[in-house]
Amino acid sequence: VAANHSKLALPFRRYHINKVWRGENTQRGRYREFYQCDFDIVGTRSVLADLDTLLLMAQAMETLGVAKYTIRLSHRGIFNALLDQLGMQEHSVAVLRAVDKLPKIGEEKVRALLAEVASDTAIDTILQFLVMKGSFAETLENMENLSGDETEGSKRLREIAQNLEELGKLQHFQLDPSITRGLDYYTGVVFETFLDELPEFGSVCSGGRYDQLAGLYTKEDLPGVGASVGLDRLLAALEELGRTGGQGQGTQVLIINFNPAHNGAYLKLAGQLRAVGIATEIFPQKRKPNPQYSYAEKKAIPFVLTLNDEDVANGTASLKDLESGDTQKRSYTRQDYSDDQKLTSRCHIEYTII
Amino acid sequence: VAANHSKLALPFRRYHINKVWRGENTQRGRYREFYQCDFDIVGTRSVLADLDTLLLMAQAMETLGVAKYTIRLSHRGIFNALLDQLGMQEHSVAVLRAVDKLPKIGEEKVRALLAEVASDTAIDTILQFLVMKGSFAETLENMENLSGDETEGSKRLREIAQNLEELGKLQHFQLDPSITRGLDYYTGVVFETFLDELPEFGSVCSGGRYDQLAGLYTKEDLPGVGASVGLDRLLAALEELGRTGGQGQGTQVLIINFNPAHNGAYLKLAGQLRAVGIATEIFPQKRKPNPQYSYAEKKAIPFVLTLNDEDVANGTASLKDLESGDTQKRSYTRQDYSDDQKLTSRCHIEYTII
Repeated sequence: VAANHSKLALPFRRYHINKVWRGENTQRGRYREFYQCDFDIVGTRSVLADLDTLLLMAQAMETLGVAKYTIRLSHRGIFNALLDQLGMQEHSVAVLRAVDKLPKIGEEKVRALLAEVASDTAIDTILQFLVMKGSFAETLENMENLSGDETEGSKRLREIAQNLEELGKLQHFQLDPSITRGLDYYTGVVFETFLDELPEFGSVCSGGRYDQLAGLYTKEDLPGVGASVGLDRLLAALEELGRTGGQGQGTQVLIINFNPAHNGAYLKLAGQLRAVGIATEIFPQKRKPNPQYSYAEKKAIPFVLTLNDEDVANGTASLKDLESGDTQKRSYTRQDYSDDQKLTSRCHIEYTII
Repeated sequence: VAANHSKLALPFRRYHINKVWRGENTQRGRYREFYQCDFDIVGTRSVLADLDTLLLMAQAMETLGVAKYTIRLSHRGIFNALLDQLGMQEHSVAVLRAVDKLPKIGEEKVRALLAEVASDTAIDTILQFLVMKGSFAETLENMENLSGDETEGSKRLREIAQNLEELGKLQHFQLDPSITRGLDYYTGVVFETFLDELPEFGSVCSGGRYDQLAGLYTKEDLPGVGASVGLDRLLAALEELGRTGGQGQGTQVLIINFNPAHNGAYLKLAGQLRAVGIATEIFPQKRKPNPQYSYAEKKAIPFVLTLNDEDVANGTASLKDLESGDTQKRSYTRQDYSDDQKLTSRCHIEYTII
């Protein structure tokens, strides 16, 4: 973005699902080369970009069939205000790194790490600051009390919480002041995503706002916000949860093959369904119904279409919902499936077979 | 597939868009590592699988905005029948490789290559066999005459041509007996795709039927058919044709931002549009209309939605088509866009904002 900002319409939105390489030392489960899905919005400080990122993370979990997840978030600006208050800004990296380890190593060890740079009183204040109270609002108030006053950061978090509540999503978000994301480049909201049923997997999607990162490469002001899904870890978690069945992710409609003389009609119908985004297969050869229906079942294909001679001549077909067993004779001459809930939820279909 | 056939519902359909590595020597434009898009159907000899593959190739070209393309095809079985007829089956690899070079090196040089394994009469017959006549049917008849008689292969090509004609696609397909695909593993239909405006780019998508390939790894009968797009070459060709503008491939709808107090309504509307597959953005901050419309224009976003106070209260919005300039006030309380041609062509939309 730094190299191409004059050519881009800002804010620039991008995503990337591919291999990435780790600069830090490798460890068990932290490989040199791994798969990541990143998404970022660069070129705006708007709270809407923060919200878009957070809502995308929530939507991704729900699309993956994970209903029980918690996105823990905080704001680096409030933490910085606390360090200012304590006169400890120069030790911010050490403090952030220690605090980031709280869930892993516990309070006592964090206290020991902090003792290298902070007085006992300062350590007490920092640890009080990290406590989660009953609600988002109460935790935020505690953070403001200890860090001095309302700041840009706390206003931003309040606005985010208010919008999440309006959208009925706040129950999935938790204000957790111990979320700091160790990396130096974060400047605003920071967040991590946990699966409630598998907290030991750690965060499966993390990120934050980095308003000065592009400053390494350009004088242009290019504030950004984004997140990354660690795909290997997320997939391992989904396997553990038994959510990798892939049901219904493949073919939507199977056209039953009763007569090779109708191949042209089958292909035309398949082409029209595919053109509107409905994954369609034709059973490859004429066979008795049973093996064809077994194939649909084995592949979890939800609908079958059958065409007899009359259907081919009249532009009709029978649509069978394999879950309910309902069969309806449908005319496909400029008719559509719009009253068919399951199919419309995926796409609107309009076609003619003759 | 050979290792997993008992777990798969056959026929197995797969695709892959990623890096591949070349085993053969590298050359200019033939790199060791390159991007390819493969698609295959394994576990059936059905002509429907051949047709699915050929029609997918045609559809891909049309989706990429290439109207002028020709898929040249032939059948290895007919070529083998010719070699049997000539008593030259043992030299099939040498003959296929020589013939494969015909478009590149011309008849004279192919004749010289063939002279190493064939008599002058045999060479004449082979070269007569390779001639394209006026139509698919006439070329096929010539091939049958020289190779002995109707074969499984020629019946298969006749059936393919008939179905392509029924589907109104035959004009994009040409029977070209010189298409052999040098690789030994092809056993049936073989094909290559040429851009009529850029024949010098060579084939951008090639493949064929390989009914014995899995036999290297299993005794199970796993016939297959498939093709590969060389993405680097295709992209270079599209650039040459000026078809890489990417217009309309991104955001479909921009929600205009007039009032930060409406952020919740903007986000809700965006979420509902995205849920039905419509790429939606909210302009990140409140600004005058001009810069917001300029942004839509710069990103070639075709529609904008505006919501004023009354709209937010009533569940309405104004939808503006930026191409035609038409604006319509729409109610979004369980209403839909189904009478809006451009949007329904992409997806059916149904939502409520309040």
